Amino acid sequence: MSIITLTTDYGLKDHFVGSLKGKILSEYPEVTLVDISHDIDPFNTAEASYVIGASYLSFPKGTVHLIGVDIERNKENQHIAMQWNDHYFICADNGILSMLTQKIVPQKIVAINIHDRFPSEFSDLDIFIKVACHISKGGLLNVIGKEIKEIKQITELQPVVAGDNNSIKGYVIYIDHFGNVVTNISKRQFTEVAKGRAYEIVMKPKSIKAILPNYSAIASSDKYPIKTYEGEKLAIFNEAGFLEIAIFRSNPSKVGSANSLLGLNYRDVITIKFL
Amino acid sequence: MSIITLTTDYGLKDHFVGSLKGKILSEYPEVTLVDISHDIDPFNTAEASYVIGASYLSFPKGTVHLIGVDIERNKENQHIAMQWNDHYFICADNGILSMLTQKIVPQKIVAINIHDRFPSEFSDLDIFIKVACHISKGGLLNVIGKEIKEIKQITELQPVVAGDNNSIKGYVIYIDHFGNVVTNISKRQFTEVAKGRAYEIVMKPKSIKAILPNYSAIASSDKYPIKTYEGEKLAIFNEAGFLEIAIFRSNPSKVGSANSLLGLNYRDVITIKFL
Amino acid sequence: MSIITLTTDYGLKDHFVGSLKGKILSEYPEVTLVDISHDIDPFNTAEASYVIGASYLSFPKGTVHLIGVDIERNKENQHIAMQWNDHYFICADNGILSMLTQKIVPQKIVAINIHDRFPSEFSDLDIFIKVACHISKGGLLNVIGKEIKEIKQITELQPVVAGDNNSIKGYVIYIDHFGNVVTNISKRQFTEVAKGRAYEIVMKPKSIKAILPNYSAIASSDKYPIKTYEGEKLAIFNEAGFLEIAIFRSNPSKVGSANSLLGLNYRDVITIKFL
Repeated sequence: MSIITLTTDYGLKDHFVGSLKGKILSEYPEVTLVDISHDIDPFNTAEASYVIGASYLSFPKGTVHLIGVDIERNKENQHIAMQWNDHYFICADNGILSMLTQKIVPQKIVAINIHDRFPSEFSDLDIFIKVACHISKGGLLNVIGKEIKEIKQITELQPVVAGDNNSIKGYVIYIDHFGNVVTNISKRQFTEVAKGRAYEIVMKPKSIKAILPNYSAIASSDKYPIKTYEGEKLAIFNEAGFLEIAIFRSNPSKVGSANSLLGLNYRDVITIKFL
Repeated sequence: MSIITLTTDYGLKDHFVGSLKGKILSEYPEVTLVDISHDIDPFNTAEASYVIGASYLSFPKGTVHLIGVDIERNKENQHIAMQWNDHYFICADNGILSMLTQKIVPQKIVAINIHDRFPSEFSDLDIFIKVACHISKGGLLNVIGKEIKEIKQITELQPVVAGDNNSIKGYVIYIDHFGNVVTNISKRQFTEVAKGRAYEIVMKPKSIKAILPNYSAIASSDKYPIKTYEGEKLAIFNEAGFLEIAIFRSNPSKVGSANSLLGLNYRDVITIKFL
Repeated sequence: MSIITLTTDYGLKDHFVGSLKGKILSEYPEVTLVDISHDIDPFNTAEASYVIGASYLSFPKGTVHLIGVDIERNKENQHIAMQWNDHYFICADNGILSMLTQKIVPQKIVAINIHDRFPSEFSDLDIFIKVACHISKGGLLNVIGKEIKEIKQITELQPVVAGDNNSIKGYVIYIDHFGNVVTNISKRQFTEVAKGRAYEIVMKPKSIKAILPNYSAIASSDKYPIKTYEGEKLAIFNEAGFLEIAIFRSNPSKVGSANSLLGLNYRDVITIKFL
């Protein structure tokens, strides 16, 4: 079985995602298509980066990940295909993959150079479809592009460890469906800096004193029903390994969320102070 | 062909549903995955219950239904798998299945007990995936759990027949995409109590005097075009067999809906008075 | 491989789309189902018409397109199946297909007449499912309906060429996920009338003086980074061949969209004046 995953900012109202699938199935009828998200905030490459980084490992090795966010080819944006950790990624070189390549060195990256082989009405997405089907059928990267060594980096918003090692300052990088806010402080970085010390998570005028193993651990006492704890703020490392500030049983339209109740927004600062 | 259906409150913005599918396909590449809904109101087990009860029969016998709503295992929530009416359901024991078991006795229920066989970083959802693939491949329930006889009941919000049999008092249990409000008064209960009498449906300050066979039946006269009837309130038994209060050609953002125009909300009372 | 595409106004919150898929897979397990859109504005046949017209060609010949918008059969709405440009379409005869048949003559149209063969609790959608599976398996149209020659036309909102050939007056027919507004002036009509003349696109108090080959072409000077041009208004012919008024890197909830910034709404007039 070959899988192609789709991550775009096209939304689900229009026919764009349906057309994309129709074209892939026309070219490669046996492929299995899986939507990762089509609700990436428009042109938000940082959000696309987080979503693809958090999900690719759920798929089998050899899966092809097509990322349709900010793909119009122009003087700043070339098209690339990358083999990395035995998965394949196709996107514009707009920084989306830099979050991955900071962790593990890519196996191969090519700048796609097959645009001239197709009629002029071929869109950028049509090129991505050709490349995705080619790779998914087992084709080589060298056939559709020229090897390159560097890709664009997103350098802003990196977490910072204080000189005295007594704090890590991170940022909110994603706000999920439940309104939970995800930061760019990873469990690995936390563990390395913490060295077992006590700590406090500081955000705006509030702070949290413990990182829980899971959401339900908020119910610290067996005396009260779980429901008692609804609406309390908590911190965990989420399934993608990042520090997440959440509201227990969060519901953005009812009890509220970390986003609404704690006033945390994209790019806000979260600091862990070691005591 | 094996089918696994997915019903969650994860939303479609995040990568959660994509990751869930990737993990299932990694374990069982030949399975057919069908989304029932990922927009269940967060942690709303009553809503999940209605949606799964209204849809499972559209699938072939033997289908496995994975329900990812309020699944974190804690002192109140064990994980269960149930064989019922020749379908399989996997969820937390939080009352979601009680709407089904009130109608037909389950064939078998087990409390899932395989958690210790997997690494500690395995999430509750990972366990559900293991169980769903096991059952979908034809595996037995006894292999993944210990048989139990009772599951948690949602007892609130049951419809009440008056002592004199002259009225049924029900509640709004679901508000759909069109803003139509669904009550928990079933066609079967109505028919049993009505015994052919005239009746009136009373809601807040308004009432409806007839239950239509379908929406278009609102066009009672052939003299006027169908469009004339847009915006009129009506009652039908919906495809799931429950009394539904609707606005003809309802559009929440334009003409309005039963939810907005009639001011009907989740848990509101609807009474049928027999005359 | 057989493909059935689905276009409805059912939304994704409820179980309706899941149930629809379950019923199709129960009848025809080997079929490949592809969602085109389930967020058609409720009962908006013009929107459904645009979406299906813009997407059908992305699918292989022989694909069956099931359109579940305004399908309740009544005195004004019969059910039809149409073979057109080697694709098959199943819908109510409510004008949805007239946008297609204005361009190319249908190969065959039938009024579906199998309703009496099924139990009375069979819904209109159940009939569509039977017909879709029948055609998708290679069945003939004559088996499920009676040939007809005419279908209902949507005649409003056609673009108008001025008597002196100096302008084309079109209308906004669709507003997409990015807030871009699509008009019903096609590239073909523009080219025929323009005959190479200079022109100006006039909308409300604003105008645009050029139709770009793609969005990024807004970056007219190499001196400034692409980001400089965010929020500028532009015009292109979109992938469906229609004139679209857009905001560069449009994001309805942030920089704003053509819909919000230029105040353009469904049915608004857009005129191209030739100079």
